[in-house]
Amino acid sequence: MQNVYLSNFELDEALKIYMDKLGALNNETEIVDTWDARGRVTANAVFAVLSSPHYNSSAMDGIACKSEKTFGASERNHVVLTEGTDYMVVDTGDPILKDFDCVIMVEDLININEKQVEIYQSAVPWQNIRPLGEDIVENQLIVPSRHQIRPVDIGALIAGGINSVEVYKKPRIGIIPTGTEIVEPGTELKIGDIIDFNSRTFAAQVSEWGGEARRYGIVRDDFELIKQAVSKANEENDIVLINAGSSAGREDYTSSAVSELGELVIHGVAIKPGKPVMMGIINGKPVIGIPGFPVSAYFVMEEIVKPVIYGFQGLETEADKMVDAVLTRRCMSSLKYHEFVRVKLGYIAGRFVATPLARGAGATMSLVNADGVLEIDQSIEGIEAGTVVKVKLLSSEDKVKNTLVCIGSHDPIIDIAADLLHRKNKKYFLSSSNVGSTGGLMALKTGETHMAPTHLLDMDSGIYNTSYLKKYVPHKKIVLIKCVGRIQGFMVRKGNPKNIGKFEDLQREGVKFVNRQRGSGTRLLLDYNLNKSGISPDSINGYYREEFTHLAVAAAVEAGDADAGLGVYSAAALMGLDFIPVSSEEYDLAIPEEYMSLDIVKEFIEIINSEEFRKKLDELGGYDYSNTGTIITQGAEHA
Amino acid sequence: MQNVYLSNFELDEALKIYMDKLGALNNETEIVDTWDARGRVTANAVFAVLSSPHYNSSAMDGIACKSEKTFGASERNHVVLTEGTDYMVVDTGDPILKDFDCVIMVEDLININEKQVEIYQSAVPWQNIRPLGEDIVENQLIVPSRHQIRPVDIGALIAGGINSVEVYKKPRIGIIPTGTEIVEPGTELKIGDIIDFNSRTFAAQVSEWGGEARRYGIVRDDFELIKQAVSKANEENDIVLINAGSSAGREDYTSSAVSELGELVIHGVAIKPGKPVMMGIINGKPVIGIPGFPVSAYFVMEEIVKPVIYGFQGLETEADKMVDAVLTRRCMSSLKYHEFVRVKLGYIAGRFVATPLARGAGATMSLVNADGVLEIDQSIEGIEAGTVVKVKLLSSEDKVKNTLVCIGSHDPIIDIAADLLHRKNKKYFLSSSNVGSTGGLMALKTGETHMAPTHLLDMDSGIYNTSYLKKYVPHKKIVLIKCVGRIQGFMVRKGNPKNIGKFEDLQREGVKFVNRQRGSGTRLLLDYNLNKSGISPDSINGYYREEFTHLAVAAAVEAGDADAGLGVYSAAALMGLDFIPVSSEEYDLAIPEEYMSLDIVKEFIEIINSEEFRKKLDELGGYDYSNTGTIITQGAEHA
Repeated sequence: MQNVYLSNFELDEALKIYMDKLGALNNETEIVDTWDARGRVTANAVFAVLSSPHYNSSAMDGIACKSEKTFGASERNHVVLTEGTDYMVVDTGDPILKDFDCVIMVEDLININEKQVEIYQSAVPWQNIRPLGEDIVENQLIVPSRHQIRPVDIGALIAGGINSVEVYKKPRIGIIPTGTEIVEPGTELKIGDIIDFNSRTFAAQVSEWGGEARRYGIVRDDFELIKQAVSKANEENDIVLINAGSSAGREDYTSSAVSELGELVIHGVAIKPGKPVMMGIINGKPVIGIPGFPVSAYFVMEEIVKPVIYGFQGLETEADKMVDAVLTRRCMSSLKYHEFVRVKLGYIAGRFVATPLARGAGATMSLVNADGVLEIDQSIEGIEAGTVVKVKLLSSEDKVKNTLVCIGSHDPIIDIAADLLHRKNKKYFLSSSNVGSTGGLMALKTGETHMAPTHLLDMDSGIYNTSYLKKYVPHKKIVLIKCVGRIQGFMVRKGNPKNIGKFEDLQREGVKFVNRQRGSGTRLLLDYNLNKSGISPDSINGYYREEFTHLAVAAAVEAGDADAGLGVYSAAALMGLDFIPVSSEEYDLAIPEEYMSLDIVKEFIEIINSEEFRKKLDELGGYDYSNTGTIITQGAEHA
Repeated sequence: MQNVYLSNFELDEALKIYMDKLGALNNETEIVDTWDARGRVTANAVFAVLSSPHYNSSAMDGIACKSEKTFGASERNHVVLTEGTDYMVVDTGDPILKDFDCVIMVEDLININEKQVEIYQSAVPWQNIRPLGEDIVENQLIVPSRHQIRPVDIGALIAGGINSVEVYKKPRIGIIPTGTEIVEPGTELKIGDIIDFNSRTFAAQVSEWGGEARRYGIVRDDFELIKQAVSKANEENDIVLINAGSSAGREDYTSSAVSELGELVIHGVAIKPGKPVMMGIINGKPVIGIPGFPVSAYFVMEEIVKPVIYGFQGLETEADKMVDAVLTRRCMSSLKYHEFVRVKLGYIAGRFVATPLARGAGATMSLVNADGVLEIDQSIEGIEAGTVVKVKLLSSEDKVKNTLVCIGSHDPIIDIAADLLHRKNKKYFLSSSNVGSTGGLMALKTGETHMAPTHLLDMDSGIYNTSYLKKYVPHKKIVLIKCVGRIQGFMVRKGNPKNIGKFEDLQREGVKFVNRQRGSGTRLLLDYNLNKSGISPDSINGYYREEFTHLAVAAAVEAGDADAGLGVYSAAALMGLDFIPVSSEEYDLAIPEEYMSLDIVKEFIEIINSEEFRKKLDELGGYDYSNTGTIITQGAEHA
């Protein structure tokens, strides 16, 4: 007995159908004090009720006088004026009495005595007078209707005698988190619990867009409870957002609740992420079901909820800020959806480069780390690397241009250096992407990064990094800067319950291992050692389970999902794990020589050479900085 | 006994000296709930304290099972699994118990009975499992220090277990309006009173920049009172702004108060407007004297106060948004100052054009009407018309691109049409500048406007507008659209006390006239009639007093500064004046033919042809719309 609704429409079409069905949104207005009206939108054109200035005033320091008394004055024929009858002394801004019609500057006066002056030039009527209404004339238009009030408008409105203005009401947005597994932040977590953070993100977005957010309590998966909550929120607000959960496995109560209370207009739009959005109308008010997956929720909020909230305020959403960027990797897309691809942006050698966020980036963190969004139309199957694409900016262009891009192997010390860099010079940022050492060298080759941290062991020579630079980036002159020596080892739970000491132990019955992804330096170190010891990867339970960071490996061990992983000391220490050293390795920074003269690169190198940075390394432990900052030039010049 | 201070430094230098003297600004932090932290700036890097998800969960609907039980399964060799021992049913998001290490999708299962399934593919450990920490791993960096928190950051922080964050305190800014002539808005005004609007503008700017504004009561020009107020505000706030008055004729108490209470570092910066700014330090806190002239105040707030407020929050001010624009008029500048020139921007025929705001624009209204600011360096004496200049955008680029530019003669009906246009289509705006009919035609010639309203009477033929188009814009094909017939006449005070009926009456002893500026259609109409009647301009008292709008003329009459002015009926009616008709004239719109196909022009023409527009004309009175919308093509094709 489901209602009929429209599904899988294109976004623009779906939004148009929905908006048309909703009809006029912005009918409610209110009167606010002008001084509290910043950001509000005028319901009507506003005209001055007072002139400003509201009297004629002097534009100079001098005397106000009668112009006819000055006629005939010249260098040869000075005219004497008497205070009171002929003139009065005025300062800039002083009112001009009706008797007088001009002002003579103090510089053009010859003082005779306290009551008399001589002049040597005749005056023209209205000279040096700031006439009534010079700034604003009564009845003049100050701001048009549907105008978003800025600080300068507040000044002009008050000057024009307007102390209150009629503006569109801020829409009230009710936000309902639902889901039996959803708990409030701060709750003691049980397995299966999910912290509700979506509703808080929505509330912040709503405020940013000029709405007033009201968050309701979490409603568990119960049809009657959800229906009640929606009905109450619909009564109390202008717009209702239901965080509808993304589980397709459970019955979806939201759509039924909306259908029963009003009309479910659209269920499912051809966008990815964001497809399962619901757009309904209850009592003439919008009620929108937002998917639970945070990235889907984000795009539904941006693409659907934002225009509705703006519409309520009589505003158009501003056009997105776009830049042209070179896509660094091929990006495939489904013909079933209009896709939104989150990208990292870099400004490298005078052009923007856009790199789709790596698989390693989790859902909410990918939103935090994204600098832009690449939209791929439904009709397009994919875009080749090297194509110039339009990217919607999420960061400011300025910030992207002042960001040092660091792609490659990740270590917690990169975050620390990033922080020190930004603290040292507020305008600079560092953005790091973790794609492993090999990925970083590839990124150097395609020109998508300023810098690649790398720790690749040459299996033949036992020397770190240099042979890989020659192999992966043969045609570029690369400067290799020694960063730190660091200790790799087995991360195991406290007390080493499975007694892991050497690589052979990983083969033992009952030992579960967790590995790093292919291309990472740590994976290479493992393979080097397995090979040396004649151990087959297939003999290790968990060899094929890949994580993308040292911390993720440590977390798997800490949770008991694995008994051992290979990683750096600092990650083990942060997670409270024991650490069995295996070998020390060289974690270096590869930077194309052409970027070495950039101010941001110089500042970064100063940071890694600083006392402050070394202090932080000591705090983390497991780092050797005896060679830090040593420069080894590599690449094309040796080729 | 004045303190020593620095004067007339260049802006950047002055700001650097001042900031260096102030030293570190942002030392105070506070802890706020994460969900209230939007827009706040982190004092430290924030690392996750929880992994998200904090347990392994299913990425699919299906069964969680032991991978070793599936080994050997194939199309030919189905394997049977039993619930409980071998598997459990899971939906997307459900936790995976420790016994199991993979998920098989429901699509890949063959159901045997309620307790058993068959599979035909072996499973790989960890397949279809969303591992603990997939999004955020405990100890992972979420946001760096000095990061301005966005809605997506709030989501990620809460997901990472961070329910409160340490952020820089919002700076408290105390604002003190001073001046004996200054009164609160809403006060019954006496001659000489000036409404305090600056302090409200400052407060709105402060909020926009993230500060907390506190406005103090108006302090009259009394040294002790000003000193007390500054001292109190200095104690209660992080920054104090004193609106110091711009009168050079009165003693300036502000500088002395600052000098006595602390140090006046800089008094006067080589910028125009804004020169008389004072930058002081009392008890280590910034105290800034802002000039009283609103435009000076605006630039001092933007250029000096904004970076200080941002500095307090650990933020850099964003780089200004600039566009390249063609300057339409020569713009002279003093070698003594770095000048800020307010400009109107238009987007005409694919390029931005910048026109310095006309003299007719009053101080606060010029800020309201400006779309951009052109900075002219101290070393430059002027910039020629036609030069491509960098303009700082005050409006959005988008808005400028969707604005119909209308330069020429002004009539209140243009404001009404502008309002109707924007109401009809929220994305469109109309910006009008009043430079008189002739000025409008010049603007058509230089390509700085889409449209020029004009009412120029040919003295020989008695025909309106067409001959002037041929004269001023001979090489462009111009479409002339009839707009309205309107009645021009004498505006006089109620009851016509000076008994004005014909042009000869303007010559009478005791009759004061107020004129319109040269180049305006109304001035031409006057001159035509004076000429016809053989009246010499010099015989009219007030002939040389020029106002820029009908309303300004009406205001002068209403205030008793003049007894008569020539203007349109609607202006007289708005000001409550009597009106003695002189002649009717044709107020038309000249539009280059190339713009007639623009959507915004089409929509505008629809507006002037609409019933709604005619209704508004009737309400104003004095307009004849019998020919409105009739198109007369003029210009080059006839040449």
